[in-house]
Amino acid sequence: MKDYKVIEVKRSIFENNDADAQKLREELKEKGVFLLNLMSSPGAGKTTTLKRTIAMLKDRLRIGVMEADIDSEVDAQAIIETGVRAIQIHTGGMCHLDADMTRQGIREFGPEGLDFIVLENVGNLVCPAEFDTGSTKNAMILSVPEGDDKPLKYPLMFSVCDVVLINKCDTLSVFDDFSKEAVEERIHKLNPRAEVIFVSAKTGEGFEEWVRWIEREIKEYNEGRQ
Amino acid sequence: MKDYKVIEVKRSIFENNDADAQKLREELKEKGVFLLNLMSSPGAGKTTTLKRTIAMLKDRLRIGVMEADIDSEVDAQAIIETGVRAIQIHTGGMCHLDADMTRQGIREFGPEGLDFIVLENVGNLVCPAEFDTGSTKNAMILSVPEGDDKPLKYPLMFSVCDVVLINKCDTLSVFDDFSKEAVEERIHKLNPRAEVIFVSAKTGEGFEEWVRWIEREIKEYNEGRQ
Repeated sequence: MKDYKVIEVKRSIFENNDADAQKLREELKEKGVFLLNLMSSPGAGKTTTLKRTIAMLKDRLRIGVMEADIDSEVDAQAIIETGVRAIQIHTGGMCHLDADMTRQGIREFGPEGLDFIVLENVGNLVCPAEFDTGSTKNAMILSVPEGDDKPLKYPLMFSVCDVVLINKCDTLSVFDDFSKEAVEERIHKLNPRAEVIFVSAKTGEGFEEWVRWIEREIKEYNEGRQ
Repeated sequence: MKDYKVIEVKRSIFENNDADAQKLREELKEKGVFLLNLMSSPGAGKTTTLKRTIAMLKDRLRIGVMEADIDSEVDAQAIIETGVRAIQIHTGGMCHLDADMTRQGIREFGPEGLDFIVLENVGNLVCPAEFDTGSTKNAMILSVPEGDDKPLKYPLMFSVCDVVLINKCDTLSVFDDFSKEAVEERIHKLNPRAEVIFVSAKTGEGFEEWVRWIEREIKEYNEGRQ
């Protein structure tokens, strides 16, 4: 028997995703659940980043993870092994999640007793940026091997994120045409308020700062509820 | 003045993209133009691969490149510097090209006098796989840093491709959990006829084989026209 559910979500019937996302955000706020929408290209390191994040936070926060994928269950299995609750959401070929698909996942998951849910969105820098999932905050991961020009090519993704992790910084010596200064400047030109954190999910570099960001955001969120 | 046109393509008005793609394929065959649809994740190395491919083939083939991107013109500029014809296609936020969008690009480009057109599709492993562009053949690039599990997670992309380049093989010692055997086996399980070629666009490793594949396909295509 599997340790996690697999949910096949259906395309939203709502025409107005933005309004629906706002509604979901309010529902979650009422429950005191902070939902982080985590986006990236395929292979940027979402799951590895999550595993390390969970290891650092699971004694302090009650964490759940929703793994969205077109087809496989590779990621839910990896997450469940960290000892937190996880489900696998199958999008049935869809390249993103909207608010209602996210709600279907959360409903099956049961958010009760959780402080922090991470939605690992489909690996894609285009479509997920266009659909508000109802998340409290948006995060994305850009990995060093992808190149420092990605903010120029996928501007909407960088514009909608509250925090950008630059991952695989342990490979900067191999990808020596990647400029940390250039990528930060390009991100801030699109989105001056975005936090940019340089990390390596492999070595743990930068994770103290990333975990501090999460804890500070959750604290402010809960203070704002009172 | 720019050395390349920028085309804003419009969403297709055709309901039946498959039929339209077949029509475009026949139009191109009549003209003797081989269209290669090149797909990958953001940052897998499409443009670098193209630049090296052009350098090896431009004395033997008349090459044109259509760079599809949501927004920027970074790639068309890079290609034009190799000395071949290039245009930039802007998709207006769309995450893929369909056959009619491809046709709009080709019409503006003018395929006359070209043997080989490469369409560099939007960086995305999901949506481009779902839309036949009318190309003669489909190619994709998976880069080593993305991981060898990608065929499990984006099966449709690997199923629709005639050839898969595994790029950035010069970094295999850094990404030492990437298994060449595993990735090849996963690809062939989805698509037994796919050619898998291990390359590095940085060092040139594997490019003799890749260029041989292109020349053989173009030769067979032209023999089939007679």
